[in-house]
Amino acid sequence: MRSLLSGLGARPTERVAVADALGRITASPVESPIALPPFRNAQMDGFAVRAADVAGATDAPVTLPVVGEVAAAPGLPSPLVPGTAVRIMTGAQVPDGADAVVPVEDTEPAGQAGEADGAHAVRVLRARAAGEYVREAGSDLAEGDDVLPPGLKLGSRHLAAAAASGLTELLVRERVRVAVVSTGSELVAPGSALGAGEIPDANGVALAAAVRAAGAVVVFEARVRDDVEQLRAELDAARGAGAELVITSGGISQGAYEVVRELLEPLGAWVGAVAMQPGGPQAAAAYRGMPVIGFPGNPVSAQLSFELFVAPTLRAIAGLPAASVASIPLAEPIVSIAGRRQFLRGRRDGEGRAVLVGGPGSHLVAGLAASDLLIVVPEEVTELAAGAVVETIAL
Amino acid sequence: MRSLLSGLGARPTERVAVADALGRITASPVESPIALPPFRNAQMDGFAVRAADVAGATDAPVTLPVVGEVAAAPGLPSPLVPGTAVRIMTGAQVPDGADAVVPVEDTEPAGQAGEADGAHAVRVLRARAAGEYVREAGSDLAEGDDVLPPGLKLGSRHLAAAAASGLTELLVRERVRVAVVSTGSELVAPGSALGAGEIPDANGVALAAAVRAAGAVVVFEARVRDDVEQLRAELDAARGAGAELVITSGGISQGAYEVVRELLEPLGAWVGAVAMQPGGPQAAAAYRGMPVIGFPGNPVSAQLSFELFVAPTLRAIAGLPAASVASIPLAEPIVSIAGRRQFLRGRRDGEGRAVLVGGPGSHLVAGLAASDLLIVVPEEVTELAAGAVVETIAL
Repeated sequence: MRSLLSGLGARPTERVAVADALGRITASPVESPIALPPFRNAQMDGFAVRAADVAGATDAPVTLPVVGEVAAAPGLPSPLVPGTAVRIMTGAQVPDGADAVVPVEDTEPAGQAGEADGAHAVRVLRARAAGEYVREAGSDLAEGDDVLPPGLKLGSRHLAAAAASGLTELLVRERVRVAVVSTGSELVAPGSALGAGEIPDANGVALAAAVRAAGAVVVFEARVRDDVEQLRAELDAARGAGAELVITSGGISQGAYEVVRELLEPLGAWVGAVAMQPGGPQAAAAYRGMPVIGFPGNPVSAQLSFELFVAPTLRAIAGLPAASVASIPLAEPIVSIAGRRQFLRGRRDGEGRAVLVGGPGSHLVAGLAASDLLIVVPEEVTELAAGAVVETIAL
Repeated sequence: MRSLLSGLGARPTERVAVADALGRITASPVESPIALPPFRNAQMDGFAVRAADVAGATDAPVTLPVVGEVAAAPGLPSPLVPGTAVRIMTGAQVPDGADAVVPVEDTEPAGQAGEADGAHAVRVLRARAAGEYVREAGSDLAEGDDVLPPGLKLGSRHLAAAAASGLTELLVRERVRVAVVSTGSELVAPGSALGAGEIPDANGVALAAAVRAAGAVVVFEARVRDDVEQLRAELDAARGAGAELVITSGGISQGAYEVVRELLEPLGAWVGAVAMQPGGPQAAAAYRGMPVIGFPGNPVSAQLSFELFVAPTLRAIAGLPAASVASIPLAEPIVSIAGRRQFLRGRRDGEGRAVLVGGPGSHLVAGLAASDLLIVVPEEVTELAAGAVVETIAL
């Protein structure tokens, strides 16, 4: 199974809009096509000046005529005339000739300095050195510098940097494209009236959700009767939909009407039993070059099999954290079957101990829903006392 | 700000398809309309028998005629005739009259037992008590029992239980509906050619992504010039789109052309400065009853303000974990400004220490992108030696 999945690691790439790239993983270094910031701008609201003109202001306030105003807005400001000041807003372009911004807090109005309307003066109360409160063009990043490395899982702050660089698309790794196929003549769509012997197909919905939760994308879903030709047609359709991996449920045990086994065993599939409960029967095959992983039909076995055999690979590819594993004491004694690794459903109690939820039966899907961890009981262990420390896997 | 956001906690509810409910939170207890399992069925492939008929099999094998076969398929099996066996598949309905399933591993074929075609016999090698390998109807859950509790964040195993119960929709809490509005005449859409004084609008994309990452949904996005009437029109449109919260960027500092301040201050907005860097200027208002949170225009300040002031509330509502906080030693000395809480961008080095990334300037968006944590330097602290333990917030 592991070798079937290993081919998924080398990901094709695709371009996605920056706005849709949250959680995706960069496939290459991302260069900024512009410098950041793109132009020299003011870090504070205040006055753009020549530092030399206000050098003595801390000792004796310096009054400068205010000859204009620069807002954070399109357009190029006029160069600063030495001996004057220009009112400037945060983020606005610092005029040529100015080399410092005096924050408005370090100034006070000096009344009208000139004769004409609108000409004012400012009294600068504190000297500011060249460069103070000025953000130089390129001080964050030069044009052509890498703004994001490859292999980065994109959060909003990364998209901020990409968008600030004027980028609209990013080259990211494609998500793994998965098909989910439920098999079993007893299955009907959830919500349909149940005839005798019929049950709702839980695996279609739940395995698709598990695939998405593991960071992959579901490209195809189907439900088939115990009919080899119908299964073959749906696998062909999954392949046509670009599936890189098919997950089937049902049809792999020892009975008759085992449709996955019947189709895939002649093609070289491995169909067998893993010494675990729930989830013993398992299958792994390549169908026309497309990996197919076959899980048992009951939803508890299918969910657990997915968690144990497929989710770790998909999560790693998607840059998601692995399921957390913890060794904690049992709140109650456990008996288990020799020769099988049991994955008992449990919950952490208020004292941090593992409590069983429901029984070991692989049909207890409500019990699985009420659990938040799996208690692992190794093959050779048949009983454990309360207080014994067990390995648990968070769900 | 906190009081503005507190109203978001009481969530309206909506019905969503089970297939779309991954990660949503149940708004009420979910009852199963059917028992689970819905009918008595076989836990193993084998033979359905009367336990009494095979009671002595462990001592001396018992041979029973095999009079039929039950698959996991629609239809009602015929009742079992005492003294006979029926071949049965995992999950198939156990016939009336049968009370145990003997796994196929505990049997061997006994050749033809009758004269007619297809009539076979099975030799049972081991006694099985009544109930063994039989899953009773309702043994997981009775009809009408709660299959999911309220307030549950839905994972795939919960959807498995809902779908197994035949449910197609779930009542969940609505996600918080957020509008994101960038302000500033200097802003152009990322990817547009930049004229003098123009910069790409990074906040639109990045705050929308931050909202989604915090489990809320973006229902409205806009970018406005420094034009009060345009901003008013967009806030009205956001309200029309059902936004419960608007996040603006820009337009709240001390300069002229502060469009958020100009529109909202006359309506009673709080616009002021928080003693922090980056992100000092902040605004909070109710516009026609709709909360508006105003962040500074530069993307680093906006992202950090979102992380510190809004994300915790949205994450809690969405059932997402809070940002993890850790106290770790500094890898290098730090100087900071008195009177302001600094949130320095940093990274954890190979030895688990905090290393600074870029400088303290709030324009260093590429530096923020290269960071994976914030180093918190309290207001009163102006310098810290290498090795000093600091609080860090994971990004």
